[in-house]
Amino acid sequence: MSADGNARGLEAEAAAAAEAARELREAAAALVATRAAEEDALRQRAVALDADIRRLQGSLPALEPSTLDKIEEDLDRAKVAITDSDVASFLPSKRNGKFLKMFLGPVNVRVARKEDKLKIKDEYNNYRDRTAYKFLLFPSILLLLRWWIWDGCLPAWAVQIYQAWLLFLYASFALRENVLIANGSDIRPWWIYHHYLAMGMALISLTWEIKGQPDCSSKQRGVQLFLRWAIMQGIAMHLQNRYQRQRLRTRIALGKVSLTCLPIDYLQAKRMDVVAGETAGVEGQLLLLYPVLFILQGFEAYVGVLLLQTALHVLASEWQARTVVVCGILLVVMAVGNFVNTVETLVLKLRFKAKMKRAKSRQDRPHQN
Amino acid sequence: MSADGNARGLEAEAAAAAEAARELREAAAALVATRAAEEDALRQRAVALDADIRRLQGSLPALEPSTLDKIEEDLDRAKVAITDSDVASFLPSKRNGKFLKMFLGPVNVRVARKEDKLKIKDEYNNYRDRTAYKFLLFPSILLLLRWWIWDGCLPAWAVQIYQAWLLFLYASFALRENVLIANGSDIRPWWIYHHYLAMGMALISLTWEIKGQPDCSSKQRGVQLFLRWAIMQGIAMHLQNRYQRQRLRTRIALGKVSLTCLPIDYLQAKRMDVVAGETAGVEGQLLLLYPVLFILQGFEAYVGVLLLQTALHVLASEWQARTVVVCGILLVVMAVGNFVNTVETLVLKLRFKAKMKRAKSRQDRPHQN
Repeated sequence: MSADGNARGLEAEAAAAAEAARELREAAAALVATRAAEEDALRQRAVALDADIRRLQGSLPALEPSTLDKIEEDLDRAKVAITDSDVASFLPSKRNGKFLKMFLGPVNVRVARKEDKLKIKDEYNNYRDRTAYKFLLFPSILLLLRWWIWDGCLPAWAVQIYQAWLLFLYASFALRENVLIANGSDIRPWWIYHHYLAMGMALISLTWEIKGQPDCSSKQRGVQLFLRWAIMQGIAMHLQNRYQRQRLRTRIALGKVSLTCLPIDYLQAKRMDVVAGETAGVEGQLLLLYPVLFILQGFEAYVGVLLLQTALHVLASEWQARTVVVCGILLVVMAVGNFVNTVETLVLKLRFKAKMKRAKSRQDRPHQN
Repeated sequence: MSADGNARGLEAEAAAAAEAARELREAAAALVATRAAEEDALRQRAVALDADIRRLQGSLPALEPSTLDKIEEDLDRAKVAITDSDVASFLPSKRNGKFLKMFLGPVNVRVARKEDKLKIKDEYNNYRDRTAYKFLLFPSILLLLRWWIWDGCLPAWAVQIYQAWLLFLYASFALRENVLIANGSDIRPWWIYHHYLAMGMALISLTWEIKGQPDCSSKQRGVQLFLRWAIMQGIAMHLQNRYQRQRLRTRIALGKVSLTCLPIDYLQAKRMDVVAGETAGVEGQLLLLYPVLFILQGFEAYVGVLLLQTALHVLASEWQARTVVVCGILLVVMAVGNFVNTVETLVLKLRFKAKMKRAKSRQDRPHQN
């Protein structure tokens, strides 16, 4: 009787669970449907307004500077209100890049909430930080062990593990930056292309035969130079990260954090005092960062040319010589691309500074209307 | 005057746009907030019910078979109503696997709507289809060109491009399957581990020196065998895909498509006639599929052992011999793992069949209460 009652109790509980699950399924379906309708309505408003702003921005005639500045300011403010708020997640998504689709398929990597976007960006910065340390340590340890234990001759496995790590690293950077772009970040496309090229180079260099004794140091000259360049690269990444972090920290303090950088920068120009403080704190670092970057790019090109020379004179195997030539060319291309893009960024910064000055002088003048 | 009017018009339009953007930003923030609250409420209900079902499933005592079957059926139905509907997207997300996090960071790859889940699964199947063709064609073309143009000796670049392609392919499979798992799919973990091992093998094999003339055919014996195994693998993938597609098509026709397979299978057992039809249509293919799979796994192990032999007897370079040994071991491990998992799947299918038979005989009996 008690076992029978127990069985009936369980039967009733199971039936109740099945019923509750059915109700829950319907509630969820209803919620998803209403949500979709509300989102569609908001999406339509966002798209219309976005198109409006673009149209106005595109058709500004020659006007008096102060009027033009005022109109531009309003439009920029409107743009920021759309792109730097929850509205952004309702705008039709940029397609995932081809690269992301190739690896992941058509998955939506866009996040809806602004705080999730910030989390992604923050994690990306943390990843860059951690990677910069590894980028510095890994080749340093290799060169140290070479001198200390390996008797001046790097073993093939150590170099190949390093190359495989580089391949993984650049692939993961490329994937993560594509995710950032899908979420509205305005990373310069070149830096992603750079990662694709670097992936290619890591892949090709994996096929190299790493030769040992005798005459190891001349055979491994290319590898050694590459490791030294990588150490410098690690230092530069470190400086860049510190600079970016400091900027981000200032912005968080200002309550102005964004994935879309330029419009915010422009708006901040209106709050001259704080922004001037921000720029001053960072300017010292910039004076160090840019020379280091340029030296690094020169060194990168030099390693590339050196690989080309090695390929043409030293290597016996015809096929390997060709892969070394390809890597040499890739390094030179990356160096040139990096240089051009660093200069362009610098020019943008200087222009922005000039614009800030104009805005300040306008603010200092008494109101004209 | 007209230019002035134009300027004032533009000013007004820009101000209106800024105001509209501000309103839109607030509407979006409000929508996101209500949505979050509603979702939280639904999530709490879903979590509580899910825990309830688990508790009941875990504590079933020994009861009369027909009562037990009825309770199990109710609980399974409740489970399916949760996992195979919009409710699933409100359950707390399984953490993204480490692999996905390593490449992508903490991005949410879960999709909310059930139709998006199906889209992902469908795209994954399409990708498998396309890949099966390439998996068949790529090594076939290599072997054909070897015989036709390359005079019995594969050039290093061709083999290395193939190996790099394999590396990309297994990485993309591993990523896509991790996305499927994050979305509730119940792929056996082994198949993903298999892809990790295969990635390792492709990476290591990239470092091999591909030797040419003289005596090319004996030096490239391992590579050739591997290519032949890959062709067989392509055929097997093709058979598997056809089998999976046919099952999926039958299920779509039944209106029962799911990412979580087993509960649905079990529920379908209640509709005996249709399921019997489905199984019959597929059974002929299974009779072909399983022998092919077992032969393939035997051949995979054979290639692995052969690589081990080659490493121990033929190769001069000590380091390369070691990498070949690692690849040999990996191939043997993959063959054994594949075999074990195929057998386990087969056993599950047979058990399921037995359960279906029991359910049918119970249905045929007259009602007892």
